[in-house]
Amino acid sequence: MAEPENVPNWQKISQQKQAHRDSLIPPAWKLKTSDFPRGNNVLDVPLTCGILTEEEIDITSNYDAVDLVKLMKDGKHSVEAVTLAFCKRAAIALQLTNCLTEIMFDMALERARYLDVLRQNNPTALGPLFGLPISLKDAFEIPGFDATIGYVAFANKPAKSPSALVTLLSGLGAVFYCKTNLPQTMMTADSDNNVWGRTLNPHNTSLTAGRSSGGEAALMALRGSIIGIGSDIAGSVRIPSAACGIYGIRPSAGVVPFGGQKMPSAPGLPYITPVVGPMATSARACRYLLECIVKAHPVRYDSQCVNLSWPEGACRRMMDTGRIRISVAQDDGHLTVAPPQRRALQQAVSALQDSGITVIPIQLPEVDVIAQNILANFTMDGTKFFLDTTVRAGDPLVPSVVALNLVKESPTATLDDIARFNAIRNEHKEQYLKIWNDLELDAIIMPSAPHTAVPHDKWTSLNYTAIWNYLDNPAAVIPIDTVKPGDIPDTAHKYGADDAAYSALYTGPEAYKDAPTSIQVVGRRQEDVQLSLIVEYFSDIIHAHLNLEQL
Amino acid sequence: MAEPENVPNWQKISQQKQAHRDSLIPPAWKLKTSDFPRGNNVLDVPLTCGILTEEEIDITSNYDAVDLVKLMKDGKHSVEAVTLAFCKRAAIALQLTNCLTEIMFDMALERARYLDVLRQNNPTALGPLFGLPISLKDAFEIPGFDATIGYVAFANKPAKSPSALVTLLSGLGAVFYCKTNLPQTMMTADSDNNVWGRTLNPHNTSLTAGRSSGGEAALMALRGSIIGIGSDIAGSVRIPSAACGIYGIRPSAGVVPFGGQKMPSAPGLPYITPVVGPMATSARACRYLLECIVKAHPVRYDSQCVNLSWPEGACRRMMDTGRIRISVAQDDGHLTVAPPQRRALQQAVSALQDSGITVIPIQLPEVDVIAQNILANFTMDGTKFFLDTTVRAGDPLVPSVVALNLVKESPTATLDDIARFNAIRNEHKEQYLKIWNDLELDAIIMPSAPHTAVPHDKWTSLNYTAIWNYLDNPAAVIPIDTVKPGDIPDTAHKYGADDAAYSALYTGPEAYKDAPTSIQVVGRRQEDVQLSLIVEYFSDIIHAHLNLEQL
Repeated sequence: MAEPENVPNWQKISQQKQAHRDSLIPPAWKLKTSDFPRGNNVLDVPLTCGILTEEEIDITSNYDAVDLVKLMKDGKHSVEAVTLAFCKRAAIALQLTNCLTEIMFDMALERARYLDVLRQNNPTALGPLFGLPISLKDAFEIPGFDATIGYVAFANKPAKSPSALVTLLSGLGAVFYCKTNLPQTMMTADSDNNVWGRTLNPHNTSLTAGRSSGGEAALMALRGSIIGIGSDIAGSVRIPSAACGIYGIRPSAGVVPFGGQKMPSAPGLPYITPVVGPMATSARACRYLLECIVKAHPVRYDSQCVNLSWPEGACRRMMDTGRIRISVAQDDGHLTVAPPQRRALQQAVSALQDSGITVIPIQLPEVDVIAQNILANFTMDGTKFFLDTTVRAGDPLVPSVVALNLVKESPTATLDDIARFNAIRNEHKEQYLKIWNDLELDAIIMPSAPHTAVPHDKWTSLNYTAIWNYLDNPAAVIPIDTVKPGDIPDTAHKYGADDAAYSALYTGPEAYKDAPTSIQVVGRRQEDVQLSLIVEYFSDIIHAHLNLEQL
Repeated sequence: MAEPENVPNWQKISQQKQAHRDSLIPPAWKLKTSDFPRGNNVLDVPLTCGILTEEEIDITSNYDAVDLVKLMKDGKHSVEAVTLAFCKRAAIALQLTNCLTEIMFDMALERARYLDVLRQNNPTALGPLFGLPISLKDAFEIPGFDATIGYVAFANKPAKSPSALVTLLSGLGAVFYCKTNLPQTMMTADSDNNVWGRTLNPHNTSLTAGRSSGGEAALMALRGSIIGIGSDIAGSVRIPSAACGIYGIRPSAGVVPFGGQKMPSAPGLPYITPVVGPMATSARACRYLLECIVKAHPVRYDSQCVNLSWPEGACRRMMDTGRIRISVAQDDGHLTVAPPQRRALQQAVSALQDSGITVIPIQLPEVDVIAQNILANFTMDGTKFFLDTTVRAGDPLVPSVVALNLVKESPTATLDDIARFNAIRNEHKEQYLKIWNDLELDAIIMPSAPHTAVPHDKWTSLNYTAIWNYLDNPAAVIPIDTVKPGDIPDTAHKYGADDAAYSALYTGPEAYKDAPTSIQVVGRRQEDVQLSLIVEYFSDIIHAHLNLEQL
């Protein structure tokens, strides 16, 4: 009886939460030890473990979200069959990567059956997301379920009312079946916390799944979900999308309802506005989900939302005329891009140029000042909230939070500090707007990060993505391919000691085997429709080009 | 030689600025003493003084902005003739009410001649505001001209680059010919400052023209302008529109480019977001100007703008079906509405109900907490900027600023204060959104203020308008009629001592002779298109009703 007393309280809560979660997985969906492969790539396990039927493998493997909605509306598959297939595959993904937090399979199956009846009674009045299983980052609130966001202090406090986006998506026909893992503080690039533990990258479990929507990305790479919602204040949709080889869009602030989420900060602090955005297995699905949300009148669900226009016709005509002009930024001027990501960007640029798109080289200005301003913003309260909800609440910092070196006693910002931050930021926004206007740009492409997924607890760079949160441009990740044997380490780094140290992270194609490469596509601020269509268009061009090369 | 030394520096600068302004008015446009009427109503002077030709009287009197653009596009009047007519009538208005600050007649006439040539060369490619003279509040920057915004400290520092909206409107064909007066600090309800002096209300010069876009409103009441742009952080478009009997819309934040204006505050302070919006002699012109701006892609002119949708078709269909539902708030629960404004609201409600619109009574919740939060926000820097740019710069406070009792040493807000303000405000936004949704409202109508224009330096109430800045709803003023002999004072006040004192301001129809009455129409946040169309629709219904009553 003495031993449990020695277990710290946070471990007891963690054990209880995880045990409850695991109890919600039926025995028939449990992996055997022999199901695990010898290497670090677990992507094929759902296909080989024998838990999924042939039909379930087809449903979860061969369609994107747009196709799947059509199949259900047409009655080719029942919503229940589709939901069950994704519940099973998500359960497998959980066992392989620890990607889930709250499991809501029973609720999902009940709703699926309700939707099937609805369809039989009224097949012509189905929502645009009819029957679609959508996974959600843990921060979304669903009544009856926790939103711990990785804080032990928030465990066993089930949500009372749904987040605004949950209500909106429900109204369009979506089915929620699971929530996904994220980092303690939501600020690091590893989805690891003391409630749920660490999420692994299914392409290579020795690498991070990225943050902070890492659970979403790992789940999607295993096709335990084909569409979901992450959140992003410094790259939290894009970093895990890049790490796990899926598509993700950070919309402009306010475009998608953010209201009613569990927050890792005190209410009302004037941080860079966090956003939520789609993550999916296709660019088309990201665009479609964004379109459904914008057209559903988000300002009526969330008092912070923007009533964005959706001039799709005008945008598509731009695509038709082939008059797209983009800039390419090779790096951020501070961290040199590792060989696999450098090659991926070059391949993407070649593909786009070959298709007739004008590509203008660009150096992003003021990145160092911007990075300092971002850091000052994220620590404005002296990280008081982080400290209060972790170490001061008996919840020790996880290694990636320690590595980030952000959570520590520091001075609280004054009114002058806040005003200075806002004023500098507004100047930067004007400076960048002038670049977009002067060069008549439709998009900027650049690496999504200076590297692919890296070993656990080593990803400390946020600037490649955070700059677009700071400037509030929509930005997306397009997966390209994976690390190739020819991606050998080099000494191309040229920005000093920090860059050299960071470049040394890439030790070669063996350690980074199967890690996805990706690019980032940035759109004009509040022109999210254009960006989502451009991403779809560019992805088609780039992947057609890559397929041709492989022939 | 001794006497000029005794003149304070601010008076010398003021004398020099006013002398220069007056030197820009040709002698033939100067009023004689005999042109002034014996009473306080100067509205007819432009028609009787003999300075304007019959054609100029027609041009300036008989059209709204929409008509006038069409007349110029069709070649019925040259842009030069129209511009000259408005320059002359604005000069008359200046002499009657002191409504102008910077005069730009020469620049305007030169541009008018350029536009006339443009039209002759290419009559089919003219902008939607082709040739339209637009007046601007003094805070807008036009290269070569001061934007003192009523601060002596800002005199003789001509602007170098244009405000974003100036660039946008120029591109659509507008002609700028004058800027208009406003209050010291831009916070009081009287457009009075030590550079330009006080603007009078042309309906009754013993009453205030309102603030802070009081120059615009006085100019427009005299039809020295038929369309212009004011700004609004607590009612600065709506209060003068109400005081002077014109139309004005405060758009949602970011809908119209605000960037590049001269500000009465330090950059970057997290104030309630100020906005700019149309003021005009017709509801249709306000809607048209807003439409032109939104369709011109404001996000490409200003990095703070919203890419608002303009679903005009859908909105007009709502009007056709007559399914409009509105709420009416009789007052704010703190200040009782004086008899003329109470009657005007009642007449408007009757007209709308008679036309089949559903009207639901409402009490606005939390107005007292909201008022306190607004006050805390406006004084967050301990009014340091106001003090630095006025008394500490040798520019004494004008009486209305003294009366407001806002500008005085007070503590600076901390980060916790700012977070608390934001958190409470966000809760209020959610609370009000729920009301809009639960009652399925398209608009709320209420008084624009608890009174009409009042005697100078007595208007200290801002809450009727400021609440909608705080909640960020679009809100507009519709002029109804003027004070009537039957509008006798009463003792209806019921909210305590402050209300009693404030109610005593209304001393009866004699002192308030010819003061315009008005209502305020509030729309859903970021549904500015709907609001602007509703205002046009309601104005037509109400004025048709009033005309019938008069028969």
